[in-house]
Amino acid sequence: MNQTLPIPFDAREFQQELAQLGAWIASYYARLPDLPVLSQVSPGAVRAALPAAAPETSEPFDALLADLDRIVVPALTHWQSPNFFAYFPANASAPSMQAELLSAALGVQGMLWLTSPACTELETHMLDWLAQACDLPARFLSSGRGGGVLQDSASSAVLCALLAARERATGGDGNEQGYRGGLTAYGSSQAHSSLDKAVMIAGIGRRQLRKVAVDANFALNPDDLAAQIAADRAAGHTPAFVCATVGTTSSLACDPLPAIGRICRDAGLWLHVDAAMAGSAALLPECRALFAGLALADSYCFNPHKWLLTNFDCSCLYVADRHALTAALEISPAYLRNDATSAGAVLDYRDWQIPLGRRFRALKLWFVLRRFGLVGLRALLRRHLELAAALGAWIAADERFELVAPVTLNLVCFRYRGSDAQNQRLQRLVNDSGRLFISHTVLNGQHVLRFCVGQGATGDSHVRAAWQQIAHAVNDLNI
Amino acid sequence: MNQTLPIPFDAREFQQELAQLGAWIASYYARLPDLPVLSQVSPGAVRAALPAAAPETSEPFDALLADLDRIVVPALTHWQSPNFFAYFPANASAPSMQAELLSAALGVQGMLWLTSPACTELETHMLDWLAQACDLPARFLSSGRGGGVLQDSASSAVLCALLAARERATGGDGNEQGYRGGLTAYGSSQAHSSLDKAVMIAGIGRRQLRKVAVDANFALNPDDLAAQIAADRAAGHTPAFVCATVGTTSSLACDPLPAIGRICRDAGLWLHVDAAMAGSAALLPECRALFAGLALADSYCFNPHKWLLTNFDCSCLYVADRHALTAALEISPAYLRNDATSAGAVLDYRDWQIPLGRRFRALKLWFVLRRFGLVGLRALLRRHLELAAALGAWIAADERFELVAPVTLNLVCFRYRGSDAQNQRLQRLVNDSGRLFISHTVLNGQHVLRFCVGQGATGDSHVRAAWQQIAHAVNDLNI
Repeated sequence: MNQTLPIPFDAREFQQELAQLGAWIASYYARLPDLPVLSQVSPGAVRAALPAAAPETSEPFDALLADLDRIVVPALTHWQSPNFFAYFPANASAPSMQAELLSAALGVQGMLWLTSPACTELETHMLDWLAQACDLPARFLSSGRGGGVLQDSASSAVLCALLAARERATGGDGNEQGYRGGLTAYGSSQAHSSLDKAVMIAGIGRRQLRKVAVDANFALNPDDLAAQIAADRAAGHTPAFVCATVGTTSSLACDPLPAIGRICRDAGLWLHVDAAMAGSAALLPECRALFAGLALADSYCFNPHKWLLTNFDCSCLYVADRHALTAALEISPAYLRNDATSAGAVLDYRDWQIPLGRRFRALKLWFVLRRFGLVGLRALLRRHLELAAALGAWIAADERFELVAPVTLNLVCFRYRGSDAQNQRLQRLVNDSGRLFISHTVLNGQHVLRFCVGQGATGDSHVRAAWQQIAHAVNDLNI
Repeated sequence: MNQTLPIPFDAREFQQELAQLGAWIASYYARLPDLPVLSQVSPGAVRAALPAAAPETSEPFDALLADLDRIVVPALTHWQSPNFFAYFPANASAPSMQAELLSAALGVQGMLWLTSPACTELETHMLDWLAQACDLPARFLSSGRGGGVLQDSASSAVLCALLAARERATGGDGNEQGYRGGLTAYGSSQAHSSLDKAVMIAGIGRRQLRKVAVDANFALNPDDLAAQIAADRAAGHTPAFVCATVGTTSSLACDPLPAIGRICRDAGLWLHVDAAMAGSAALLPECRALFAGLALADSYCFNPHKWLLTNFDCSCLYVADRHALTAALEISPAYLRNDATSAGAVLDYRDWQIPLGRRFRALKLWFVLRRFGLVGLRALLRRHLELAAALGAWIAADERFELVAPVTLNLVCFRYRGSDAQNQRLQRLVNDSGRLFISHTVLNGQHVLRFCVGQGATGDSHVRAAWQQIAHAVNDLNI
């Protein structure tokens, strides 16, 4: 045999290195609270530290760990820091990491039931577990005509839903003859940019996407939706798709699902509901009013990879009619045909998504749900809600600041009572301090600061210190 | 504080459990050669073994490990088995698994450069490393107008390429006004089904996808391509996109890139080259002739997650003009704007892909390339080539069998000299034995057996035993 033949998996070496890596990860988590949250490196710094070409021969494991500290850590924005309050949480957890390792080690493909039955069936089951735990409408359970599937992201989920809607509205013509225009889609002016991207990808076009007006709390105005649908129909368009949001990215606005659902039902439009971050709150009975009306939706998405201790990627897409989804995405080449599929006895998830291949992601949900239990997950969500509410109260009590949107769940949108430039400067000051990281949005034409609570280790002390940092930075606004 | 508040990451517990999990994985790999490769469970078996609802309270880690053995392992089709010869290899390795764990632990998002500079820069750099190691055309390097990006799969890669082609051909109108038909796309009759799926998703439609004739070795016939493009143009269509393949899924046919490239260049079509599995062979100088002409391609894809010891997902997409790609996929909401992006100083990979969020997948390539070195990876590829060639020779020497396609790299397509029913029965016999797993395709209207060599631990003994099992099973063909 060739002397240089590598051993892809050496059990003893693997376990020794895994212990080293585990210790490195433990050390990273210990350092996390003190690391500057937003990376301070300049563009090109990482590449400048790397060799110009791949090594010809093997390097020792220790060299990799050393380079993690030397090159990688300084160039990370630390999403797992308890002081990360930007964008949305992407909280991870030990069970989720372990399951990700396990998935990599098993290395199975879940494109067909046959290519690993456990991958498909555990996924269907976990999606049912979550649907029940969140008290989602029964139509999304796999026991009926619907069911759930894991996607990589809410972006892919809304695209799949839009494609299903496109095919339903065109009688399959988009897939077969090609799409020839005429459909219209709707979302509030606050809907996520993934809706814009989906209408681009599906060939529907951004000019066919209507931005519906919102109320004072940035929630979709159903009267404007109904009016735009009617106007489009009168103009010869075919209204086909509405994306409503529970918890918009900008301000966590919650669109009125019952009214929107009735409009869609009466007008025959596909209703997709995007609750990417906020959806985890449906685990809490006291938050379920936000999801009332969901039974009128054709599809629903939320991301355990945001706020449910499951590392990215793990996005749940539910559909009420799984055949409407697979009709839009099904392909059947000879090399994938098999008895189980032909008999209709199984689900083949390749027909529920854009790519063909798929990882065994359900292991992550299985590990997270069993290790924390629903009681534990609910407790964590409630802590985040309490912390956000406390911050909201501090801001409301400080006359230098104003809340710009209601603190419905775990997001606080606020601004310094000054100019946009001052708020931008304030944001830069606190982010450059390294002690916390917040992001921003634009609401009512103003630069607004977003403070989102949701990392696993975030506690009272972190939110309190962050607020003190912000309040103190105001003194440095020499504008 | 709430008494039931979970600790998402407890360093001591995490490391203890990681050691247990590492030992379980080592044990799984030790058992792998003896496990039935194709899962023997019936539909529903996994779900029947699972509780109907998620647990309210935490379960011990040991319970999870026990359920892996009891429920999961019997319901896996063991892609990492040295006796797995079906579909394509999805070979994993210890460094790749470790990097996947690390990526989960760091838990960063790479949607923007800013959201973790290391995630973006290491990715750009690893794609450059691979491009250089494979001697890809310089136009795909990030130092010029091109560059590489990691996708989840070759399916997503061809979709992104098609969208770029659609927008180039419509002057951006597909994205803005909506796509209104008229474009045509081309691939050989042997092109992967992901091309069909991409034309569906992009709204171009399957009837606008031309299946180009192939030669006796199942490679695309460039004369037929040119003729179909001319006929379509004469009929008022706008030819826009060609997908050529280096190593088709069915039979590892290699389309003639120089001729196809010249046709595309002269006619102004976007040429995408899909080398999902075979692309790893470009690491070997002796295989580079298969890739001649690649400098005429606009985009190129190959999957280290197939045949380069990097667990799924890790698919490399290269483009010659990155602005053509981002023009098709770019969206810019207020909440993602930042100085680094506005200054044009960085790449933001969200604009190179369908989803917004992205994992730190480049760590896998970094670990794999550094731990094995190019020398090690080349040695492994060469072993697989030798094993496939040996099997091909054995089959050619056995008058009961025939080779149906040349053994160009690591795939052997063959059949028993009998009926389709006999070949199907032969396939079932060997797969039901559990000792190996092969898949099939249809070539020239006949049921053909596919034997693909590429798992990390597959050696001479495994291929030899598999061939003996197949040859022996012929005696049981009581038809």
